[in-house]
Amino acid sequence: MFEFSLSASSGRARCGKLVTPHGDVETPAFMPVGTAASVKAVAPRDLSDVGAQIVLANTYHLMLRPGDALIAELGGLRAFTGWSGAYLTDSGGYQVFSLSGLRTLNEQGVRFQSHIDGTAHMLSPERAIEVQEHLGADIVMVLDECPPYPATREAVTAATARSTRWAQRCRDARTRADQWLFAIVQGGVHPDLREHSARELVAIGFDGYALGGLSVGEPKQDRLRVLDHVDNWLPADQPRYLMGVGTPEDIVEAVARGIDLFDCVLPTRNARNGQLFTRGGRVSIRNARYRCDRRPADPGCACYTCRTFSRAYLRHLHLAREMTAATLMTIHNLAYYLDTMKRIRQSIRSGRFEEFREETVRTQAAGASERAC
Amino acid sequence: MFEFSLSASSGRARCGKLVTPHGDVETPAFMPVGTAASVKAVAPRDLSDVGAQIVLANTYHLMLRPGDALIAELGGLRAFTGWSGAYLTDSGGYQVFSLSGLRTLNEQGVRFQSHIDGTAHMLSPERAIEVQEHLGADIVMVLDECPPYPATREAVTAATARSTRWAQRCRDARTRADQWLFAIVQGGVHPDLREHSARELVAIGFDGYALGGLSVGEPKQDRLRVLDHVDNWLPADQPRYLMGVGTPEDIVEAVARGIDLFDCVLPTRNARNGQLFTRGGRVSIRNARYRCDRRPADPGCACYTCRTFSRAYLRHLHLAREMTAATLMTIHNLAYYLDTMKRIRQSIRSGRFEEFREETVRTQAAGASERAC
Repeated sequence: MFEFSLSASSGRARCGKLVTPHGDVETPAFMPVGTAASVKAVAPRDLSDVGAQIVLANTYHLMLRPGDALIAELGGLRAFTGWSGAYLTDSGGYQVFSLSGLRTLNEQGVRFQSHIDGTAHMLSPERAIEVQEHLGADIVMVLDECPPYPATREAVTAATARSTRWAQRCRDARTRADQWLFAIVQGGVHPDLREHSARELVAIGFDGYALGGLSVGEPKQDRLRVLDHVDNWLPADQPRYLMGVGTPEDIVEAVARGIDLFDCVLPTRNARNGQLFTRGGRVSIRNARYRCDRRPADPGCACYTCRTFSRAYLRHLHLAREMTAATLMTIHNLAYYLDTMKRIRQSIRSGRFEEFREETVRTQAAGASERAC
Repeated sequence: MFEFSLSASSGRARCGKLVTPHGDVETPAFMPVGTAASVKAVAPRDLSDVGAQIVLANTYHLMLRPGDALIAELGGLRAFTGWSGAYLTDSGGYQVFSLSGLRTLNEQGVRFQSHIDGTAHMLSPERAIEVQEHLGADIVMVLDECPPYPATREAVTAATARSTRWAQRCRDARTRADQWLFAIVQGGVHPDLREHSARELVAIGFDGYALGGLSVGEPKQDRLRVLDHVDNWLPADQPRYLMGVGTPEDIVEAVARGIDLFDCVLPTRNARNGQLFTRGGRVSIRNARYRCDRRPADPGCACYTCRTFSRAYLRHLHLAREMTAATLMTIHNLAYYLDTMKRIRQSIRSGRFEEFREETVRTQAAGASERAC
């Protein structure tokens, strides 16, 4: 039912395939974020059109609204949302720590108040698994304790140890055989704590391993230093997922260090704010230079938005606060991200990944700078 | 280049075809409203999918943002928006009178302040034609003076007389041969003033005739009394357009009195507010009865939304304030309206229009009332 296989590598970068009950996921892969059972501003047909193979949904949001029991009653996430590809759900931990109001944490779990209506809820390792079994994703995540950044080494050590105990409880609580369970390596920016966390989790044994607690405000060099050691701690033949990352440059740098899976709100959130990712660099569509620019958002892109609309029209829609602006720019940004992943995979297979990496860093650093009118 | 022909009738209801340089429009026809060069929450592909043949855009909004000169520079509305079917633009009169802030009206035209940024603008018959020639729609409208409702008979008489003089100036100002110009019959709820207005406009001679100043708050019976006489004043062989109307029932009643063209924001605006039009009556998607309703919005509908999503999912998206709720419900409501027009045409051709009219009034009066869970 599940299988992960690697087919090519270039340095530490890996290219492979994750077989799930709901379709194959070519890795390195990017997962669009569908927080509330919807990738904001687009529909499942758009996700298929841009080549998405797996979508992430958020346990925290869905347990609060519409409720995991309702989604289970309606046949799980896939039946509920109309997205027929693979799904991954997070465990809710990150959102409980970053979004909810009052919360009390102890060994049992975390009590918190909904950010929607203030109602009281409990998330424990067992409940996180129950919710995710209700939601029915192909890949589910253990509940972890996410320390803030910055935090003392002692606080990170304690949170990491608790996360390992919770990971064990998650593993013990699962009842469905048709879901893969991934552990989450914690340890902040400390390579030794990361290694300790990873070795303990690998000893318990999971279907895949994620890196949590990164891209939370730490310097990029600290993140890369952690990633530099991934090959030493994690089994080579299992999938590795870097949670919440990131820009195209960040993704390429993480692929270079052996990561297979990514998710991030950047392409969708930036689209709603009028920021486009293009082969020529970032385009801020509000800029007056695009007022009468007849070119598509990205002349090198084949998505519906780029086949159909000019920058001038996207700019107008954005300034007029038309919802369609968000839809069209989200379609493009997701197409850009998914095409980037495709080009990453091709470059690994053809042994030209290093060239692709350098090109990405160079072009993404530059803004689109031509003047159109 | 243009042609209007009638192919069937049933009582006073007419079925025909309006040939334009950008496609045929089967009548009676409904025009989705694309105020700011975008039918809110959907893209041109959605308009094609639901069977739209002509779209309305608003002169007032577009002259203010992004400006008619810019749209002209970019090739006109069709090139700008990506909608490749026919377009109709209104003259801006109605919006100047209903949306703008301070305004001063005299025989020359109307000076007004933009509702967007307070800047001063002028709309005269000549400027209304210039803007619409810049926008490049297939059908353009004369500038009219729209009295408020209620208004004294004297005020309506004066506004109607001025509207006739402005219609003549619009006709004199036009320079493009590839656009049809429609006049607007005014006269409030007074059949004799309406007849006077119509006869004067017909004497000048236009490509089609609209009824303005209705659906502005007057009792429905007053509106129907005006429509009852349309056949007496307007040439049988030219298109007739009832501006800003209305519900499916309103449209059917107007078709029964010889109207060919309609536009209204109801299907799109109601979709954004969570109101669906269905063959079983109105569905207010917020209602708790749809919480776990697995049925599509309208089981009799073949649109993308009804093929793919349950009422339970649409309700969740709407309550979670996901933009996609608006998109999916707009697609359905437009599909419902355009399918209603298709069924109207079929019923006229098959001589069963009266049955269809009775059925529409009956089903639309009822709300969807089944309990699902």
